[in-house]
Amino acid sequence: MPARPATVPIAPISYAGSPLDRADHIRTSPEALAQLRGPGARVLLLDGLDPVLTSQDTLRWGDLDAVSPEAELVFLGLDGEGTERRACFAPVPVVKPGETPHAGPASWSAMAVLSHEELAIYGGARALVGWHARHRFCAQCGSETVLDKGGWQRTCTSATCGVPHFPRVDPVTIMSVEHEDRLLLGRQPRFPEGRYSALAGFVEPGETVEEAVAREVFEEAGVRVHDVTYIASQPWPFPSSLMIACHAVAKDDAITMDETELDDVRWFTRAEVEEAVAAKTERGEAGLAFDAPSQSAVAYVLLKWWLDRGPVT
Amino acid sequence: MPARPATVPIAPISYAGSPLDRADHIRTSPEALAQLRGPGARVLLLDGLDPVLTSQDTLRWGDLDAVSPEAELVFLGLDGEGTERRACFAPVPVVKPGETPHAGPASWSAMAVLSHEELAIYGGARALVGWHARHRFCAQCGSETVLDKGGWQRTCTSATCGVPHFPRVDPVTIMSVEHEDRLLLGRQPRFPEGRYSALAGFVEPGETVEEAVAREVFEEAGVRVHDVTYIASQPWPFPSSLMIACHAVAKDDAITMDETELDDVRWFTRAEVEEAVAAKTERGEAGLAFDAPSQSAVAYVLLKWWLDRGPVT
Repeated sequence: MPARPATVPIAPISYAGSPLDRADHIRTSPEALAQLRGPGARVLLLDGLDPVLTSQDTLRWGDLDAVSPEAELVFLGLDGEGTERRACFAPVPVVKPGETPHAGPASWSAMAVLSHEELAIYGGARALVGWHARHRFCAQCGSETVLDKGGWQRTCTSATCGVPHFPRVDPVTIMSVEHEDRLLLGRQPRFPEGRYSALAGFVEPGETVEEAVAREVFEEAGVRVHDVTYIASQPWPFPSSLMIACHAVAKDDAITMDETELDDVRWFTRAEVEEAVAAKTERGEAGLAFDAPSQSAVAYVLLKWWLDRGPVT
Repeated sequence: MPARPATVPIAPISYAGSPLDRADHIRTSPEALAQLRGPGARVLLLDGLDPVLTSQDTLRWGDLDAVSPEAELVFLGLDGEGTERRACFAPVPVVKPGETPHAGPASWSAMAVLSHEELAIYGGARALVGWHARHRFCAQCGSETVLDKGGWQRTCTSATCGVPHFPRVDPVTIMSVEHEDRLLLGRQPRFPEGRYSALAGFVEPGETVEEAVAREVFEEAGVRVHDVTYIASQPWPFPSSLMIACHAVAKDDAITMDETELDDVRWFTRAEVEEAVAAKTERGEAGLAFDAPSQSAVAYVLLKWWLDRGPVT
């Protein structure tokens, strides 16, 4: 796998850059954890899995009294320095009927207004408490599980089973695919009108990142690729993906679309991508070849990277 | 994140390179799946999660009669070309009491003797059937689950829940950390005598690959790093990790070891790493600074890459 040119900058990655110290040594110490659950602690307030914002568009925090004493609390980490050091927690919500793990309107709004650091705190908390909410039972034996290690584990309560379960992170490949200075982008049926984005798919057991990229592009577009290059990664908390953004070069430009996955997939010229990305920055403009992905998505970072890299000469 | 030099070769990645066509369109078609479960199909024989080898050190396959009619079967993919095309399955075993998901003697033996392609088939199958064996119940409601989509999903049998569950892949970062042409390697208590390897740890919700690398190195060795570079990836089926191998540069060489995780961690010179890696290739040699990781581990690939890259001038 060839390297990406070191000189090409990467745009800011949304949901990265949490300022919290995860302080993992505290997770394994029930005494230290109990001590942190004192008057200085703060609790991230959530509406189910959605963020709750103040009138100043910041995350809303409460003290421990703000949540039910029965609520399971996840230890997110430590905030601040020295005597200002505070423990941060988030409560595990109950899964609402019909609630999907995808990003809803409240999350998209938060992406538009929260600071980079607060968005990262919210994302990390959402992925973690969402996993707890969906893992109240042991997948191995069906017994109830309880929160353990400050929320970085759940443990089966059955005396004959008792296995530990760990928060899940699903690696997903997402790729810019290039052929003669054009980029392959597709649209899923659920996309807003005009939106095209990078193809993507989960890494499966038994394959490398590079193999997953090649498989996905072939499955979805019938295009064979080579020279897969790692570009950047992003934690995406809907429900808990690790987006692994790569670039790949197509062997030729003939497309065979997977109609069960995509509405359309096609090649866009550098000028078309450039216009669409510029319009996204300026929030909306008419007469474009397509609507670029959100600036919060790593797909946007990939498109920006490809534009900044320029044509291969 | 800077790029790794494109000219430095990467050693073969064990468990990568499966020759099977995953044929994902078949998974969603019960008719196509039923048709494949005919006389031409072959089933990978396993001893629990361990491989079963022939006297020629190849994987042992049987036909559908070789497994119980009640056994859940996972569709691994298609093998061969044209009229030689066969569907490959693997049975879901029952978890044995005390069975760990780590690599045992039978797996290490298989790594030493199986061909690159057969090892990849075994690894992909093991990760997948192991996940099924440990997910017979719904983590959300505790009801039983059944195998679905040819084994690429389990579905909750409760009429009020019915959620789908997907095979799990856990992203793990593993890193070569460099300071003035020396490499930081550590040993875990469970390692064989003399063994040192690259530090490693799971990617947690809410962090990028690069952030996970920096956090792990600081947690385990108290060393701050910069310039994290992606090198390679590997599917590691014990139980189902995606190893993401990176290189990082240390800010200084002062070590504060995490004594709960490691027996020792220290800096090795280029000459020491070179000797240890060379000895590994030739299977055992006395008078080394340390015993290098197995050639099947991506840690070995990282060490080889660092040696081949040479000192930074």
